[in-house]
Amino acid sequence: MNPSTARLQAETVWKLLATVRERQPLVHNITNFVVMNNTANALLAVGASPAMIHSSDEVEDFVAVSQALVVNIGTLYSEQIAACKLAALRARAAGVPWILDPVGAGATPYRRAAASALAGLHPTAVRGNGSEILALAERTQAAGQGRGVDSLHAPETAVEAARRLAADSQTAVAITGAVDYVTDGHRVAAIENGHSLMARVTGMGCSATAVIGAFLGVERDAFAATVAGLAVFGVAGEIAAQRARGPGSLQVELLDALYALDEATLKATLRVTSN
Amino acid sequence: MNPSTARLQAETVWKLLATVRERQPLVHNITNFVVMNNTANALLAVGASPAMIHSSDEVEDFVAVSQALVVNIGTLYSEQIAACKLAALRARAAGVPWILDPVGAGATPYRRAAASALAGLHPTAVRGNGSEILALAERTQAAGQGRGVDSLHAPETAVEAARRLAADSQTAVAITGAVDYVTDGHRVAAIENGHSLMARVTGMGCSATAVIGAFLGVERDAFAATVAGLAVFGVAGEIAAQRARGPGSLQVELLDALYALDEATLKATLRVTSN
Amino acid sequence: MNPSTARLQAETVWKLLATVRERQPLVHNITNFVVMNNTANALLAVGASPAMIHSSDEVEDFVAVSQALVVNIGTLYSEQIAACKLAALRARAAGVPWILDPVGAGATPYRRAAASALAGLHPTAVRGNGSEILALAERTQAAGQGRGVDSLHAPETAVEAARRLAADSQTAVAITGAVDYVTDGHRVAAIENGHSLMARVTGMGCSATAVIGAFLGVERDAFAATVAGLAVFGVAGEIAAQRARGPGSLQVELLDALYALDEATLKATLRVTSN
Repeated sequence: MNPSTARLQAETVWKLLATVRERQPLVHNITNFVVMNNTANALLAVGASPAMIHSSDEVEDFVAVSQALVVNIGTLYSEQIAACKLAALRARAAGVPWILDPVGAGATPYRRAAASALAGLHPTAVRGNGSEILALAERTQAAGQGRGVDSLHAPETAVEAARRLAADSQTAVAITGAVDYVTDGHRVAAIENGHSLMARVTGMGCSATAVIGAFLGVERDAFAATVAGLAVFGVAGEIAAQRARGPGSLQVELLDALYALDEATLKATLRVTSN
Repeated sequence: MNPSTARLQAETVWKLLATVRERQPLVHNITNFVVMNNTANALLAVGASPAMIHSSDEVEDFVAVSQALVVNIGTLYSEQIAACKLAALRARAAGVPWILDPVGAGATPYRRAAASALAGLHPTAVRGNGSEILALAERTQAAGQGRGVDSLHAPETAVEAARRLAADSQTAVAITGAVDYVTDGHRVAAIENGHSLMARVTGMGCSATAVIGAFLGVERDAFAATVAGLAVFGVAGEIAAQRARGPGSLQVELLDALYALDEATLKATLRVTSN
Repeated sequence: MNPSTARLQAETVWKLLATVRERQPLVHNITNFVVMNNTANALLAVGASPAMIHSSDEVEDFVAVSQALVVNIGTLYSEQIAACKLAALRARAAGVPWILDPVGAGATPYRRAAASALAGLHPTAVRGNGSEILALAERTQAAGQGRGVDSLHAPETAVEAARRLAADSQTAVAITGAVDYVTDGHRVAAIENGHSLMARVTGMGCSATAVIGAFLGVERDAFAATVAGLAVFGVAGEIAAQRARGPGSLQVELLDALYALDEATLKATLRVTSN
C-alpha cells in the first residue's frame, strides 16, 4: 500500500471512531463471565453504551433495540448457547449486525459444536486467534486445536482459511495475534499495532471483539468496521503497553488510552496495510 | 439549608462511616456478574465485609446472619429472580435491611416485571438512575424506557415520582446522576458530589448501591443511611476523578479514595442539601 | 531452620517459578464469578496458561488435557457442584493434580456439605483461611463458622487440625492469613510474607489458590508446590503493598509484581521456615 492509501485508511478509522463517540451505539453483549467487566469498560471507554443481557427470557427483546450484538462463548453452558442462538436469529431478522467470538473453539467437542452452530447463523463478523479460526474454518477434529483458550497457530497460518471462511459465509473474519488480519474473502488488511504484553492479560481478544461490535453499530461495511475496531484497539494497546510496568497496569492504561485517543496520535501510530 | 445544618449533615455522614469501619457489617450481595468484583471491593474499601452468595439453596440461611442484603438485577436470569425473592422475604422476616437496584428496569418486559415484583417485597431502600426509578414508579410500558442500562432521564425529572414511590412503599428512594437525590416521601436530600467521568466506568451505580447497603447495616434510619452511603461514594468518586487520567485509573483511584477517606477531606468536599 | 536451609528453600521456590514460566502449564479453573478475572490474570502474570471452563458438558474433556485443576466454591450453585465433582473425578483418574478452595465452608449447611463432598474426592491440595480449614477438618456444625467468607480464626489455631486433615487424606493443606502455614501431615512450613492490606481486596485467597495450581502443574511434590505457590504470591503481595496507595492500586501492583518477580528480589524478600 502506498503512503497516500495508508493516510486514507487512517482517515477512515478516525472518522469511524468519531462516529462511535457521537452516536454511542447500544451494544448488546452475551459474553463470558471472565471478561464481562473489562469488555463493558472497553465499550464505555471507546464511546459506546454496553449492556450485558443474557437470559433467553429477554435477549430477543433487547437485541431488537440495540445497534449491535456481541456473542462470546468463553464460559459456555447450555442455557447460554440457547440464548446466543435466539439473539443471533433475532439480530439477523432485525438487521442488527452481530459478531461472534468463538473462544477456544477447538478445545473440546462441545465447544467446537457450539462455535460451529453459531457460525452457521450468519454472523456479520467473526474474530478469533489462529487456532480458533482454523477450528471454525476446517471443522475437523484435528484442526485448530489450541492450548485451552490460547493459540498454537500464528495468525499468518490461518489467513488463507479465514479468506475461504469469509468468502463462503459472507462474513468479515479477523484473526488476531502479533499481527491482526481482516478479510472479507477478497480484501485482506493487516494491522501491525498492539504489544506482546497484551497476551499476558486475560480477555484482550474478547475486548477487541466487543470494540469491533461498537464499530459494526455505526458502519454497514463489516470489513471497514472490523479493521477500524482492531486498529483503534491495537493503537490504544500499544500506547498503554509503553506506559505500563506489567500486565496489571496495562489493563488500566488501556482503558485510559481508549478514552483519550485523539486524531493526531491515532494517525501517527496506526500501521495498517491492505491489498 | 443553612451552613450549620450542612455541618450537622457532614458530621452525621462521618459518624456513620466511622461506624461502618468499626462494625464491619456483613453485607450479603445477590448481584450481577459484571460488577461482582467491583462491588465486593467497594464494600471492603469502605470497611464492610461482603459476601456474594446467590444460590436458592443457601440465600435464606445466609441472609439471616447478615447485617444487610443487596439485590441487583443487572444480569438477570430466572433462577436468580427466585433467589432474590427468597432472600428478600427472609431478610424482611428477620429484620435485616435490604436495598434493591433495579438495573435497566424499563429495558424489557421481563426486566420490568422482575423489578416490579421485587419492589413489591418491601425493600428498605431502592437506588436507580432516572429511567429506572420512573419505570418502577409509573409501572407503565412507556415510562422509564432507558437506553439499555443507561438513563435517558435526568435525575431531576424523576424526583417527584420517587417521592410518591417512597411514600407509597415506605422505602428510601435514591436517584443517582449528575446530582443524586434521596427521599423518604417527605424529606428530599440532594448530593452534588461525584464526577461525569464516573459514567464512563461500568457498575458505578451498582457499587453505590452496595455501599448504601453497608450503611443500612449499621443505621436503622434508611433515609440517613442512604444519604450517607451516596455522600461517601460521591466524595470518593470526586477525589478519584481528580487524580485519574481516564476511566481505567478512575476505578483504581476510587477504591483507594474510599479506603483512605478521612474526616477533614469528607467534610471539606461534601455538598449535600436537604429540606 | 538454620540459614543454609532457608537459602535452600528459596532456591527451590525460585527454580519452581522458573519452571512455571518455562512450561506455562495449562490450568483448568472452575471458580467463582467474583474472582474469575483476577485469578486468570494472576495465572497469566505468574507464567501459566489459564482456562475458565465450567460446564458439565465439557469439564471432563478439558481437565484431561490440562496440567492442573483449580476448584473454588465461592459462588456455588447446584450445576457447578456437579461440574466440580465430574472434573475432580476425571482429574484423579487422569493423574492431573487438583486443588480445592473451600470458600466460606462453614457459612451455611449447603456450603459445608459441598465442601465436605469435594474434600472427599482426594484433592492434591487444599487452601483456605482458618475458619474454612477448621470447618473441613472438624465436620461439625459448630466448628469453623466464619464471618461470611472471612475468617474468625487466626491461622495458628487451625494448624493442628490441618495437620490431621492432611495426614488422614494424604493432601497438602494450606492455611492462609497473617502468616501462611502448609502441612502434609508431617512437615509444617510457615511463610511470613504478604501484607495486611491484602485482606481489603476481594479474592486474594482465591488467587493464591490458583497460583498454587500452577505450581502443582509442574511439581509432583504437593507440599513443595504449595509452599512455592504461596511464597511467590506472598512475596509479590508484599512488594505490591509497599508500592500501593490503597486496595485499588494493590491489585494492579500485585499483577505487575508477579510478572516481574526476579531471583534476587524473591530470595531477599522470602521469609519461610519449616520443620
